[in-house]
Amino acid sequence: MDMQVINETEGDQRANKRLVRVVVAGATGFAGQELIRLLSRHPQVTITAATGSQSTSTPRHLPSLAKIWDGTVVPLNPGAFEADAVFLALPEAASAELAPTLLASGMRVIDLSGAFRLRDSASRATFYPATGPLPDGIAYGLTEFETDAIRNARLLSNPGCYPTASLLGLLPLQHAGLLMPGADIIIDAKSGISGAGKAATDRTHFSENHGSVAAYNPFGHRHTPEMEQALGQPVTFVPHLVPLDRGILSSMYARLVSGTTAAAVSAAFERVYADAPFVRLTGAALPEIKHVAHTNFCDIGWKVDEATGRVFVVSVIDNLVKGAAGQAIQNFNLMFGFDQKAGLL
Amino acid sequence: MDMQVINETEGDQRANKRLVRVVVAGATGFAGQELIRLLSRHPQVTITAATGSQSTSTPRHLPSLAKIWDGTVVPLNPGAFEADAVFLALPEAASAELAPTLLASGMRVIDLSGAFRLRDSASRATFYPATGPLPDGIAYGLTEFETDAIRNARLLSNPGCYPTASLLGLLPLQHAGLLMPGADIIIDAKSGISGAGKAATDRTHFSENHGSVAAYNPFGHRHTPEMEQALGQPVTFVPHLVPLDRGILSSMYARLVSGTTAAAVSAAFERVYADAPFVRLTGAALPEIKHVAHTNFCDIGWKVDEATGRVFVVSVIDNLVKGAAGQAIQNFNLMFGFDQKAGLL
Amino acid sequence: MDMQVINETEGDQRANKRLVRVVVAGATGFAGQELIRLLSRHPQVTITAATGSQSTSTPRHLPSLAKIWDGTVVPLNPGAFEADAVFLALPEAASAELAPTLLASGMRVIDLSGAFRLRDSASRATFYPATGPLPDGIAYGLTEFETDAIRNARLLSNPGCYPTASLLGLLPLQHAGLLMPGADIIIDAKSGISGAGKAATDRTHFSENHGSVAAYNPFGHRHTPEMEQALGQPVTFVPHLVPLDRGILSSMYARLVSGTTAAAVSAAFERVYADAPFVRLTGAALPEIKHVAHTNFCDIGWKVDEATGRVFVVSVIDNLVKGAAGQAIQNFNLMFGFDQKAGLL
Amino acid sequence: MDMQVINETEGDQRANKRLVRVVVAGATGFAGQELIRLLSRHPQVTITAATGSQSTSTPRHLPSLAKIWDGTVVPLNPGAFEADAVFLALPEAASAELAPTLLASGMRVIDLSGAFRLRDSASRATFYPATGPLPDGIAYGLTEFETDAIRNARLLSNPGCYPTASLLGLLPLQHAGLLMPGADIIIDAKSGISGAGKAATDRTHFSENHGSVAAYNPFGHRHTPEMEQALGQPVTFVPHLVPLDRGILSSMYARLVSGTTAAAVSAAFERVYADAPFVRLTGAALPEIKHVAHTNFCDIGWKVDEATGRVFVVSVIDNLVKGAAGQAIQNFNLMFGFDQKAGLL
Repeated sequence: MDMQVINETEGDQRANKRLVRVVVAGATGFAGQELIRLLSRHPQVTITAATGSQSTSTPRHLPSLAKIWDGTVVPLNPGAFEADAVFLALPEAASAELAPTLLASGMRVIDLSGAFRLRDSASRATFYPATGPLPDGIAYGLTEFETDAIRNARLLSNPGCYPTASLLGLLPLQHAGLLMPGADIIIDAKSGISGAGKAATDRTHFSENHGSVAAYNPFGHRHTPEMEQALGQPVTFVPHLVPLDRGILSSMYARLVSGTTAAAVSAAFERVYADAPFVRLTGAALPEIKHVAHTNFCDIGWKVDEATGRVFVVSVIDNLVKGAAGQAIQNFNLMFGFDQKAGLL
Repeated sequence: MDMQVINETEGDQRANKRLVRVVVAGATGFAGQELIRLLSRHPQVTITAATGSQSTSTPRHLPSLAKIWDGTVVPLNPGAFEADAVFLALPEAASAELAPTLLASGMRVIDLSGAFRLRDSASRATFYPATGPLPDGIAYGLTEFETDAIRNARLLSNPGCYPTASLLGLLPLQHAGLLMPGADIIIDAKSGISGAGKAATDRTHFSENHGSVAAYNPFGHRHTPEMEQALGQPVTFVPHLVPLDRGILSSMYARLVSGTTAAAVSAAFERVYADAPFVRLTGAALPEIKHVAHTNFCDIGWKVDEATGRVFVVSVIDNLVKGAAGQAIQNFNLMFGFDQKAGLL
Repeated sequence: MDMQVINETEGDQRANKRLVRVVVAGATGFAGQELIRLLSRHPQVTITAATGSQSTSTPRHLPSLAKIWDGTVVPLNPGAFEADAVFLALPEAASAELAPTLLASGMRVIDLSGAFRLRDSASRATFYPATGPLPDGIAYGLTEFETDAIRNARLLSNPGCYPTASLLGLLPLQHAGLLMPGADIIIDAKSGISGAGKAATDRTHFSENHGSVAAYNPFGHRHTPEMEQALGQPVTFVPHLVPLDRGILSSMYARLVSGTTAAAVSAAFERVYADAPFVRLTGAALPEIKHVAHTNFCDIGWKVDEATGRVFVVSVIDNLVKGAAGQAIQNFNLMFGFDQKAGLL
Repeated sequence: MDMQVINETEGDQRANKRLVRVVVAGATGFAGQELIRLLSRHPQVTITAATGSQSTSTPRHLPSLAKIWDGTVVPLNPGAFEADAVFLALPEAASAELAPTLLASGMRVIDLSGAFRLRDSASRATFYPATGPLPDGIAYGLTEFETDAIRNARLLSNPGCYPTASLLGLLPLQHAGLLMPGADIIIDAKSGISGAGKAATDRTHFSENHGSVAAYNPFGHRHTPEMEQALGQPVTFVPHLVPLDRGILSSMYARLVSGTTAAAVSAAFERVYADAPFVRLTGAALPEIKHVAHTNFCDIGWKVDEATGRVFVVSVIDNLVKGAAGQAIQNFNLMFGFDQKAGLL
C-alpha cells in the first residue's frame, strides 16, 4: 500500500495516522460533490486535488461545501496527480481513457462510471461504446459480495445505482438457490431526479417532475445487462422517475423454488448480511427511501406468498451515497485496509 | 328516468334544460369534495343536498369550494333526500347500509366505495366484511367496458382507483387474446398520498412521505380480487405511495402469446379506445401523471419486446377524478342519457 | 364588437351562438398552454390558430392537450391571422413588435408580456428595453379594478403574476385611505417554479428546488415598478421560489392610519370585492395556495394588530391562471361583453 | 466538569478518551431522533439512556437509527439517569418540571423546549404558561453570541428554530449599530413541515401541504418575544409553512442608519463570524435551504439598497440541526470543553 506518512502536529485530528492521498476527478457533478463531502470527514484521507471534467478550464469553488472542504476544483490534468487512489466521477469515455494511465503510474482507481462494469464485449459495445478494451485486474465493487477481489483491486468498478439496490435484494435468494430456475424476475425501480444527472434538460425541469411519475427506457436501460451479469439470468427492468431528489426504491418480483418457506427466505437474507454494517433487514416492515437518504445504508424488506410461491423484495438506497460515492468509499476502505465504515457513519 | 322539470328563467344558464337532482353523501372527504366541484359545473345537474358521513352532526361549509358551490354540508339523513341520483362517497359499511333504502325509494345510486365491487361472496367476506348481501342490478362502472350495463344500472359500483388505471391498460390485450394464458401478470402501482385518505395518520404525515417512496400491502390489497374478477385470472399487485398529492401510475408486466407483434398490440388498444373521449393512447411515448392530474383522462402507453414476447404497459389517472369522482360522473352521464363528457372537460 | 356568426350545425355544442375568433401566439409556453386549455372549453370562443414563438419553424402538437384541443401549433405568421382577438404569450420584445400591426388590422390584443405594463418611459427603458414606444388605448388588466377601461380596450396589458396577487391584497386598503402615508410596504412573495419559465436552466432543475427555498432579485425585480405605479407609492418587494409547481403566496406588511380598526379593514375588503366572482375573502382564516391552484380565484386573508397599527395581508393565486391565462380570459370576457366567468369556472 | 473515565478496551474506538455520559429525554420526536443520530457519532460521548416523553410506557426501538444506535428507548425515569449531561427534547411543561431535579443532582441540562428562553415573567406567563419559576444559571444558547455564558452554564436553554435563523442574520447589524433606531424590522420566515412536529394532524397531512404555502399565527407566534428579547426592540414576525421537510429560510427587512454603505454591512457580518465554524457568509449570492439541509450550518446573505437605506438579509438553517439538535450539541461541546465542531461535521 502506498500511503503518505505525515508529520505529527499537535491539535491535528489526523496526527499519528497515515493518510491516504486521494484525487477526485469530476468533482462538480452530483456524485463528485458527494465524494468530496464524505472524504472530507474521512479520518484517514487527504484530498490532494479535485478536478472538473475534461471540459472544465477554469478553477472554481464549491460554495455548498464551504467550511467542509475549501479547496479549489482545478482543470483535469492527470500528470499532476499526487495520489495513492483516484476516484473517477467522469463520463464513461473519459474514465476509459484516463484509467489505464493512472494505473500505469501506480495509482489505484475507483471508477464510478459504467466503463468497466460489463465483462461481455458485445454488451459493452452496445451499451458503453467508445470505452476501449478492458484493463486487467478489475473488481466489481458490490461491496457485500466481492470483498476479496475488492481488497486486491487496482481498478475498482463501482456498480450502477439501480444494480446496487436490486442486486443486494436478489443475490441472497439466488445464492441460496431459492429462485425458481427460468422464472421471470421483474424489477420495477423508482429513482429520485438526481439520478438523471446535473445537466439542465426538459427531463430535469422541476415542473416536469413535481406531482408526476414517469417510466422510462423499458427493456432498454444499460443497467439491465449489469444485473443480468451478476445474477446469471435475464431480468425485466423498468426504471421510473419519482418526484424527490435522492433515493432509489427497487421493487422486485420473483418466483421461489417449490416449497420454499418464508422462514427460508428470511434465513437467506440474514445469513448473507449478518456482518454487513450497511445493510439493514426490515423483513415484513417494508423499507422506505426516507430511512436511507443521506446515508450509506441499503434497507431490504420482503414478503413471501407461500400459497403461490411468490416473493416480493423491496430495497432502498440513496443513489448518490450507497449507489455512488458512499459505496465507492466503502470499497476504497477495503482496498486500503480500513474499517468499511470509516468516513461513512 | 325521474328528472325534475324546472321553470325556464331568462338568464338562467340552465334554462330550457331538465336538471337531474343529485345528492352527494360524504361530501367532506377527498372524493366527495371532488364530486361537488365537478357536479357544480355540470350543466344538467342540480345538487339538492350534500351530507357529511354518518358521524357528522353539525352543518359546515367547504371553504375551498366557496363561489363554486356555496351550499352547506348537512348531517346524513336519507329520509330527506330529494334526488334522482345519489352519489355515495362513504365508507363501505355505510354504503352497504344505505344503498338498499335509496334504491327502494326509486333513486339511482352511484357508489364510490368497495361495498359492491366484488361478486364472489368469499372474496367479499374477506375484503369487505360487514357489507351485507349484494343487491340486484349492480353494474360495475369501468365506463369504457361496461356501457350497456351502466346505462341501465340502478346501482352503479364505481371501480377502485388502482383497478381503473390497471384494467384500462390490460383489458384491451386480454380481450384481444394477446396475453399468454397462465403467464404472470405483475402490477406495480404508484399512488399519490390523497389515495391514503383524508384522515391524519402517521402514514399521511408530510414528513413521512416527502422525499420518500414506500411499498405497502404486497399480495394483500383488496383491489387485487377486483382486478382478478375483471381479468378472469390471477395478478400480482403491489401498491406504492409516492410523494405527490394526486395521481396513479400503474406499471404492468405481462407475456404475450407467441408471435404477437408490436403492431398487434397497438391495434388492440386503438380498436377498443377509438371512440373513448377520456382515454388517450401515447404508444411508445410513455404517459406521465402530470398530464392527467386534475382531469378525467386515462393515458396509456406501452412497449413490446418482440424478441422475448414481453409487453410493458403504463397507465396514468388522477385517482380522485378518473379513479373516483370523475368516473362516477361519467357513469352518471351514461345512466341519465347525457354526453359522457358533460361536466368533465 | 367584431364577432363571427357561424352557421348552426346540428350536434355542434356551439350552434346558435356567435363565436369570437381568437388566436393564441406563443402556445407552447406554460401560459400559452393554459390559454389553449381554458379557451377550448370557453362556450363563446373558437381558436382559429395557435402559434409558436418567433423561433418556432415546424408545426407541432401539444400531447398534454390531446382530446381537449387537437389542433396544431404553427409558425408565427401574423398576416394569416383570422381573429377578432389575439392573445400574445410571447417574450416582451416580440409582443412589442407584433401588437401595433395586429391593432392596425382591427384585431383586439391581449398581451401577457410586460411590454405594455409600465407607463413611465424611464422605468420602461430600464426594465423593458427594446419594447419601443407605447401604443395608444392600452388598458391595464387588473380586472377587479379597471373594468371600464378594460371593456373598451383595444390593447389589453395583462398584469404580472406578482402584481396581480399583491395589488389585489393592497389596493382595497389604499383606496379606502387606510394605509399610513409614507410608511413602508413590504411584499415578500413566494412563487412556484413554473414562474421561472419553461426553459431548462440550472435554476429550474428539479434538484435545485426540491427541499429548498430561495430568495432572488431583492429590490431589483421588474414587477416592483408595476406595483408602485398602481399603488402610487414605493414598495419593497422580494420574490422567492418555493418547491411547488403552480401558485403564488404574497405576504404583505403595512402600517395603518392611526386608529384604524380591524373592522374597518374588513369592511374595505368586503366593499371592493362584494361582486367579484373570482376574489374570495377569508379574513383571519389565512388562505393557502392549495385552495386556488388550477383555478382563477384570488383568495385574500388578513390580520390586524390594533395595538401597533399593523396589518398583515396574504393573497394567493395560481400564477398561470389568475396570474396569467385566466385573468387574460377574464379581461377578454369583459372586452367582448361576456360574463366574466365564462370558461373560467 | 464531571466526566466519566472509562477503562481502555482494545478495539473500542473510544478507548483512551474520556467520554461524557449523556441522556436524551424525548428521543422519539424529530429533534430527539436527530440528537441520537448526531450524538452516536460524537467521539467524546456515550449515550447512557434515551427515553420517551412522559406518556411513553413501553420500551421501543428506533428502526431508522438501526446500526447507528441500536439502543432501546425506555420510559422516562429521571431517578435512573446516569449522566453528566441531559438533553431535554420534551414539551416545555415537562422540561420545566424535570430540569430543577436534574440540576440538583449535579447534571448539566440542555433544554430544547421554550421553557427557559424568556426572561420577562409576563411574556413567559403568556407564551409558556405552566413552566414555573426560572431556575438560576440559565444561558441562552445562541452559540455564536453567548459563548462565555454557555461555557459555564448549568442549564442551557437552546434557542427556537426561527430565532436561531433570524437572530444570526440580524444581530451583527444591530451590534454594529447599523440598524436605524425605531424603524420597523420585518421577519418573514418559511419553515419545512417538520417544524410543525411529529403529531399527525390536519396541518401536517401531506395533502394539505404538497403544492401549497401557508402563513400562520401572524403577530402572535411565541418566537416573537424571544427575538425581541435578544434584539432589544420590537419585530414583526410571520412564519409560513412551505412544502419541504427540513429547513428554514428567514427573510428580514430593515432600515439602515443614514449613510450606511454596503461595505459597512459586509464588514459587520465578517467581523462577527470570522471564526464561526458553522456560519457561512454568501453576500449577494443569496443562500438557499438546500445548502444547509442535514447540516449544522447557518448560511447568511444580504443585499443593501444604498439609495433607500434598506437592507434585506436572508438566513437559512436546518430547523432540526442548527435549529435544534445540532446547536444543542454545539453548546454541549462548549460546556464540556470540546471543539465546537465535534460530532457535527
